[in-house]
Amino acid sequence: MPKFDAAGLLSAVVQEATTGEVLMVAFMDAEALAATRKSGEAHFHSRSRGRLWKKGETSGNVLKVEEILVDCDQDALVLKVTAAGPACHTGARSCFYRWIDGDSLVRSGS
Amino acid sequence: MPKFDAAGLLSAVVQEATTGEVLMVAFMDAEALAATRKSGEAHFHSRSRGRLWKKGETSGNVLKVEEILVDCDQDALVLKVTAAGPACHTGARSCFYRWIDGDSLVRSGS
Repeated sequence: MPKFDAAGLLSAVVQEATTGEVLMVAFMDAEALAATRKSGEAHFHSRSRGRLWKKGETSGNVLKVEEILVDCDQDALVLKVTAAGPACHTGARSCFYRWIDGDSLVRSGS
Repeated sequence: MPKFDAAGLLSAVVQEATTGEVLMVAFMDAEALAATRKSGEAHFHSRSRGRLWKKGETSGNVLKVEEILVDCDQDALVLKVTAAGPACHTGARSCFYRWIDGDSLVRSGS
C-alpha cells in the first residue's frame, strides 16, 4: 500500500476520469487517504494550514473519486475523478491553465 | 515563474502529450527545471541520491518535453511529453500500472 515520506506525505495527482485532463496536484497524508477512501470524495492535507482539507468543503466543487492508481515505488497517487465544478479556486476548470513560454506564463484558451 | 518549497522542490507530473496518460511524478529543483528547459528533455532532482537526474540517462528512455504547464499557485508543473520508451524502470509504459482495490493493489491490463 502507499508509502508516505519523512514528512508523512505523498503527492496526489487529480485527473479527470473522462478527459484525462490533470486538474490539480496536492499532498495527502494517511488521514487524507483514509478519508478519501471512506467517503469516495477527495481529501488532502494542507501544508499551509496543517490540517485535513476536503476539496470543495467551502466551494461545493467536490471531486468524486472513481479510481486510485499507485506508482511503482508507491509514493505517488493518481486520483481519477469526476469533478462537480471547477477544480481551481480561480474558477478555472484545471489549476494548470497556464504554460511557460520563454520567460512568461501564458494563459491557455481553455 | 515557478516557486520552490522550503526544500527547494516542486512536484512535476509527466503526462504523455497525445494520450493524456500520467506516466510518472517526480520532483524538480531549480537546476532540474533549467536543465529541462535548456535541453528539451525532462530532468528531475533525485531526493534519494541528492542530485540532478536526467530521465533516461541510463535506459535511453528520455522524455521529450512538448509543453510545461504551471498551476495556479506556481508550485506544481505538468510536463507534456513524448516518451521514447517505457517511463517506468519496471518496463511498464507508466509508473501508475496498479490501482487500489480494497486492501490490495491490482495490476491493470495495460
